[in-house]
Amino acid sequence: MNARTESPDQQLRARARRVVPGGMYGHMRAEGLPPDYPQFFDRGQGCHLWDANGRRYIDFMCSWGPIVLGHQHPGVTEAVNRQMAAGDCLNGPTERMVELAERLVGLVTHADWAMFSKNGSDATTTCVTLARAATGKRKILVAKGAYHGALPWCSPHPLGVTAEDRAHLITYRYNDISSLEAAVDEAGSDLAGIVASAFRHDYGLDQELPDAAFARRARALCDAADAALILDDVRAGFRLTLHGSWDLVGVQPDLSAWSKAIANGHALAAVTGNGRYRDAAAKLFVTGSFWCGAVPMAAALATLDALEQGDGPARMRAAGQRLRDGLAAQAAVWGLAIRQSGPPQMPTLLFDDDADCAKGYRFCQEALKRGVYLHPRHNMFLSTAHSDADIDEALQATAQAFEAMASGG
Amino acid sequence: MNARTESPDQQLRARARRVVPGGMYGHMRAEGLPPDYPQFFDRGQGCHLWDANGRRYIDFMCSWGPIVLGHQHPGVTEAVNRQMAAGDCLNGPTERMVELAERLVGLVTHADWAMFSKNGSDATTTCVTLARAATGKRKILVAKGAYHGALPWCSPHPLGVTAEDRAHLITYRYNDISSLEAAVDEAGSDLAGIVASAFRHDYGLDQELPDAAFARRARALCDAADAALILDDVRAGFRLTLHGSWDLVGVQPDLSAWSKAIANGHALAAVTGNGRYRDAAAKLFVTGSFWCGAVPMAAALATLDALEQGDGPARMRAAGQRLRDGLAAQAAVWGLAIRQSGPPQMPTLLFDDDADCAKGYRFCQEALKRGVYLHPRHNMFLSTAHSDADIDEALQATAQAFEAMASGG
Repeated sequence: MNARTESPDQQLRARARRVVPGGMYGHMRAEGLPPDYPQFFDRGQGCHLWDANGRRYIDFMCSWGPIVLGHQHPGVTEAVNRQMAAGDCLNGPTERMVELAERLVGLVTHADWAMFSKNGSDATTTCVTLARAATGKRKILVAKGAYHGALPWCSPHPLGVTAEDRAHLITYRYNDISSLEAAVDEAGSDLAGIVASAFRHDYGLDQELPDAAFARRARALCDAADAALILDDVRAGFRLTLHGSWDLVGVQPDLSAWSKAIANGHALAAVTGNGRYRDAAAKLFVTGSFWCGAVPMAAALATLDALEQGDGPARMRAAGQRLRDGLAAQAAVWGLAIRQSGPPQMPTLLFDDDADCAKGYRFCQEALKRGVYLHPRHNMFLSTAHSDADIDEALQATAQAFEAMASGG
Repeated sequence: MNARTESPDQQLRARARRVVPGGMYGHMRAEGLPPDYPQFFDRGQGCHLWDANGRRYIDFMCSWGPIVLGHQHPGVTEAVNRQMAAGDCLNGPTERMVELAERLVGLVTHADWAMFSKNGSDATTTCVTLARAATGKRKILVAKGAYHGALPWCSPHPLGVTAEDRAHLITYRYNDISSLEAAVDEAGSDLAGIVASAFRHDYGLDQELPDAAFARRARALCDAADAALILDDVRAGFRLTLHGSWDLVGVQPDLSAWSKAIANGHALAAVTGNGRYRDAAAKLFVTGSFWCGAVPMAAALATLDALEQGDGPARMRAAGQRLRDGLAAQAAVWGLAIRQSGPPQMPTLLFDDDADCAKGYRFCQEALKRGVYLHPRHNMFLSTAHSDADIDEALQATAQAFEAMASGG
């Protein structure tokens, strides 16, 4: 290809291929997306995103979850600038850590305490380690196909992983009480904990909200076995409710893992727990060079304030429902059979009879061309920056995308 | 204790105990330090740090490593503000990622490529996983007592860790060729990699620079076994040299783990590797929600520029040597037998006949009272913000601290 005809994104990809294995890694590798999706980005503002080619999109990925108030949210920016002028990474925490732990204990129904880290994987791993530390047992139940991070014990792509890394994992099927009971039986007297996602948001599949009876049974099984009920709220936390996602079905976990939306894009994760796990948590050695960083904690305080004061989850729900209703009506007009699943704040859109995702790819490409950034397989994310006007503008583009699909070509 | 007589730090500790297990966790828990050390901090500027009580210190911990240019370094602040105004956490990386990977490949002798994450533990874990992925083998050699992070496979405090988490680890003694050879023999045909720290910086012990013959033997053993030589440069990287710490002994690793000083306090880690590991790295699935964050990468670019242009490692070495020489002279005056070890940029100070560290505690407490923040057991850190005048001011305080010790009371 001629360098003069290459786009900035293509030029960056070529440079990246020389100094980054495969040009990019992990969940943000553009190879998982339809052709023409950009790999590199320049900036963000509200619900808008500009790629390295200078194209603007109404964005429905929200950086795969972290952006919950939109980019450049004034309240977060102000808190970040204020904290940055004082100090971020010091010889210990600042008052922000105490304030944020107090805030989470006040907001999250099950929480008596909080600890902070950087990655969702840090938080889920701490929960599992803590469950083992507190119970003196080893077996951890996880739902088949669920994503809990990218460390050897939980990575969905186990290259370089040894059998021993997963020696004490037992799988069950999400929302399937009998499979959960069978897994608990298999763990026997060695059950340390049951890990469950806030809802079933497995890649490429229809999403499933937690069944209340399933959640209650998980709670009862943990109580009977003196094991930890661990909620992986990394992806869903603070979008569905500020009180812990299973609060919506009336079930409280012992431990929860949080990250993504907690600080509107600043690197932060958290574990919250109840009193039963406090003593063991105090004995645990978990740490990282940047875990006391005050700027992400200041960002989190501002994010939670904005979400609470602005009724963030309800607003995102309404915006997501407006999008969902519009898409459903459009698909019906063109006789295209689609399935929309999951909470409206984190919607998944799949086409019927689309095993290779060709339809999903086509639809998303057509939308992308028209300035709307959707994902054909992964759940998407709304933010409080998505106004009714933004949704309606996006729906104009998706109407044309459906039309282009239906008319072939 | 009366609330009215409690210091802000004590009040924060009391609040923290209610909402954070044990009041604090990990390596920044003040319990590991002499009494009177603050747990909470307010701000930093250059080589100075202010605790929550408003007391100012000349700081020799540099946030346990990350602060390499001093707090509020203008070049880093400017780069951070510029990037923050554009975007940080987007739907993919920005050009900053490519620039930073290019920069590391240019600076680090062994590096043909780079990947980025958030924690030192992320980087060491990626190296180990990559060694296994590339070689198809499992055994990893680590030096007994070395710190490579706080995940179950490597945490120094294995509460909640299962035997299987460490099933394929074999230990050797740092700088001991015959113990390394024995460990390689034990691994047999299953040797995936040898992990070595940049130098021996184990907690509470005299530090030891790498013996060149030992480093060469590690390299030869890996070559013979088709295993990865992994340098853990998380703590030392960019303080001793910008080219990789074993460059100083003429030995190149296959993979290196970096973090701490890379972005002057912004949360970032990196893995660099040579061409042999590129293909396997491209197949690895490692990721995190904030790993593409552009602000820490912009900070890293500015940090590396400042370190290179200002001859940072040499300046820190000179400042550390000035401190070391002064401390040695002072201790001699008062007849106190001390041992100073490690590179001057990362000095450790231990007292003879001090198994319980009572002398070290006493000395550090006396220095703290006089406005100098030292650590009695862990290696300390210099930054380029430590001027000769700062070192001399610190030495005035340590002279008085030695005198107070020598005169008893």
